[in-house]
Amino acid sequence: MTERATPSVDGLVIGILGGTGDQGRGLARRLALAGHQVIIGSRSRERAEAAAQQTGHGVRGLANRDAAREASLVIAAVPWEGHAELLTSLAGELAGKIVVDCVNPLGFDQRGAYPLPVAEGSAAQQAAALLPDSRVVAAFHHVSAVLLLDPGVDAIDLDVLVLGDDREATDLVRALAARIPGVRGIYAGRLRNCGQVEALTANLVSINRRYKAHAGLRVTDI
Amino acid sequence: MTERATPSVDGLVIGILGGTGDQGRGLARRLALAGHQVIIGSRSRERAEAAAQQTGHGVRGLANRDAAREASLVIAAVPWEGHAELLTSLAGELAGKIVVDCVNPLGFDQRGAYPLPVAEGSAAQQAAALLPDSRVVAAFHHVSAVLLLDPGVDAIDLDVLVLGDDREATDLVRALAARIPGVRGIYAGRLRNCGQVEALTANLVSINRRYKAHAGLRVTDI
Repeated sequence: MTERATPSVDGLVIGILGGTGDQGRGLARRLALAGHQVIIGSRSRERAEAAAQQTGHGVRGLANRDAAREASLVIAAVPWEGHAELLTSLAGELAGKIVVDCVNPLGFDQRGAYPLPVAEGSAAQQAAALLPDSRVVAAFHHVSAVLLLDPGVDAIDLDVLVLGDDREATDLVRALAARIPGVRGIYAGRLRNCGQVEALTANLVSINRRYKAHAGLRVTDI
Repeated sequence: MTERATPSVDGLVIGILGGTGDQGRGLARRLALAGHQVIIGSRSRERAEAAAQQTGHGVRGLANRDAAREASLVIAAVPWEGHAELLTSLAGELAGKIVVDCVNPLGFDQRGAYPLPVAEGSAAQQAAALLPDSRVVAAFHHVSAVLLLDPGVDAIDLDVLVLGDDREATDLVRALAARIPGVRGIYAGRLRNCGQVEALTANLVSINRRYKAHAGLRVTDI
């Protein structure tokens, strides 16, 4: 699996838009533990600051726009409902940057989770359409927020599938994912193949329900 | 993972429609090695017999219709292009039986594989719509035909995701998958969540190309 030199992710300042949710705070915690400067963004600066304080490890909180401006790499962890609007409003701040989309467009009913139709094919493709001057990568869809946030969990048994059309950007995000102990970042295709990766989160919800687990995926033979 | 008693799959006669392809022959080989009677079906009885002879281990070859009639459980391993037509034509023979759909509706171009749109949502949902009197389960989408066919490979490092709306049928197919050494059969949701499991095969194609692998998936934490 050592196909190329691993790009350095040292010194990256990571902004997490919509970072006050469990997924955002969990990623903030793990990436701060890995030594990164991390900024949680939120519509409300006050809520961002509160989430940052709760997360600890030097994480800061800012309004989404300021988080986008200060960060060198931005993770979009917003709810699907606010995805298009937020990215559109920040297209200027996000220009030239790697934007990592980890949004899963899912609906929920009594029978569990199911994928919502997305006109662009996937949340990541929607991001790429709305942010023509950014380098959109998709990753971190399947990682359990519970495990990310659990201080008793040192390593996470998971491969992060990384998708995108920009080789340098996907290589960097693979290296970033690997900063979380236990995790590998695996290239898993172009953005046109992202819809099923996002939707597969519904299957993990089904698995978790059936097996009382926090299921993740490992890719075998690599 | 011992949630319920494992249903017995002893004595199942397994028919594999469109079983002359690599996937069908590979499954035939592994299930015959596990002690099952296996019948490869094909449009042409002669080609079915040739594939059966090539596969060995007591596998027989019949025309698809006769394979469907003689089998107690049927695996549909036909190309997506012929899926609807074949199942429609065999609805009578398949009534009352478990039909395991392992078809991946994919297109291929210079950049690799990509999912094809399916009006019903997935190949398995199409099968369920065409076979209202059968018990449709989806499974075996991600298993590498190369590994199934390789006599040097004793165990396969893979979880087979099993989907369906009929608990007894999915339990039985999970047990059947586990007859292949190394494999676990994992319940992964209802048929409405099958489209992304089928489409994910495109990502495995991307992974195989990048890493020169025969990638499969393992579900962690169960």
